[in-house]
Amino acid sequence: MTATHTPHPYYPLDLILDHYVPNTYSMADTLTLLFSTFGAITVGSIALSYQKRNTTIRGLGNQLTFLWFVMCGFIHFFLEGYFGIYHRTLAGDQSPLAQVWKEYSLSDSRYLSSDSFVLIMERITAFAWGPLAFFTAYAMYHNRPSRHIAQLIISLGQLYGCVLYYATTMVEGSPHCDPHPYYYYFYFGFFNIFWMIVPSILMHNSVKNLYRAMKVAVEAEKESKKVKKSK
Amino acid sequence: MTATHTPHPYYPLDLILDHYVPNTYSMADTLTLLFSTFGAITVGSIALSYQKRNTTIRGLGNQLTFLWFVMCGFIHFFLEGYFGIYHRTLAGDQSPLAQVWKEYSLSDSRYLSSDSFVLIMERITAFAWGPLAFFTAYAMYHNRPSRHIAQLIISLGQLYGCVLYYATTMVEGSPHCDPHPYYYYFYFGFFNIFWMIVPSILMHNSVKNLYRAMKVAVEAEKESKKVKKSK
Repeated sequence: MTATHTPHPYYPLDLILDHYVPNTYSMADTLTLLFSTFGAITVGSIALSYQKRNTTIRGLGNQLTFLWFVMCGFIHFFLEGYFGIYHRTLAGDQSPLAQVWKEYSLSDSRYLSSDSFVLIMERITAFAWGPLAFFTAYAMYHNRPSRHIAQLIISLGQLYGCVLYYATTMVEGSPHCDPHPYYYYFYFGFFNIFWMIVPSILMHNSVKNLYRAMKVAVEAEKESKKVKKSK
Repeated sequence: MTATHTPHPYYPLDLILDHYVPNTYSMADTLTLLFSTFGAITVGSIALSYQKRNTTIRGLGNQLTFLWFVMCGFIHFFLEGYFGIYHRTLAGDQSPLAQVWKEYSLSDSRYLSSDSFVLIMERITAFAWGPLAFFTAYAMYHNRPSRHIAQLIISLGQLYGCVLYYATTMVEGSPHCDPHPYYYYFYFGFFNIFWMIVPSILMHNSVKNLYRAMKVAVEAEKESKKVKKSK
């Protein structure tokens, strides 16, 4: 905007980010770092799922669900947790996680300007949904009765957070996003759409399982009352 | 701020609300209107609960829970729905619902400035949680197996929305609130704190019921596998 402010590549162009320092990693470096970590988590999760003979953990669908929760645990707790704690200084931060956020922020500068909605939503995601994701993976692995309750809670939390995340900037005409299709559709769109699609499927799956169990419980309760009355 | 803008009583004081028109109702009128409506809903709900002999609807705790969902249905769908649709012109609107909002906005001007987070959160509350509140009341009334699933979903949605609602302005030092204790503690605090306390209690209650049912279901499944193996 004016020559007295530090120039930066983020939108809106008049955003003031005087503590901004350009990344030392290239875009390719950053994406390689990110996807290698995701790859390692994937291999670890799938390997772990083969250790167990539960019907709730074996089979491709279950293995992918298990991987999803482990991956969410890492992304929420570490990546989003880093933002939740260091958001104020992020634009000038050169740690590997900060460089990932500075690259991503090209599609949403609210991460560098500590937007109050993004900050609170990310803190809840990191420190409530993060541990809950690991717990859900654990509950699934050991076929615990709490699994579908945890799965329903985290999936609704993720879905609600993601709807708010998209809609709060889109209703303003997405002023925080670089309009280039690479940033808008790949970073802002593709990277987040998973948290719309997968939680919707998993909520449906949990509601179905919980409904079936509650139906049996309600019937049994009614039955026991009839027996009592007829005595 | 400057003489060229319409003066208004909202915070922050430099907020521009040129379409603002002062309420024709007094504060007492507005609160009387609001609380008479709440009173009528309360009488109707309690009367309705006496029509049914289910153990899930009778007794003070259950009657209050039933009242809660009916009340939430009305507040979400009609009061918050009105804001969700007419937010843009609200500051100059003189309908009864608009006058309630203009009175409430003394404690949070984000309702008059169409703040993007408040807008999207309120629309979801009105048009997702509103109908779901009526459905939960219905499911409770008829002791349907879906009751605790619906109760868990809506309660988590309300709780998450309320945490975000409070925290997004408090993290900025509540610049949208009149700091007078009447507005800050009664309107902003007291009127909303219900949606932190009640959903927390109801979530706990639903999780307990769902867990008990799932425990039976998981045990039954394990048992049937043992039987199959031993055959």
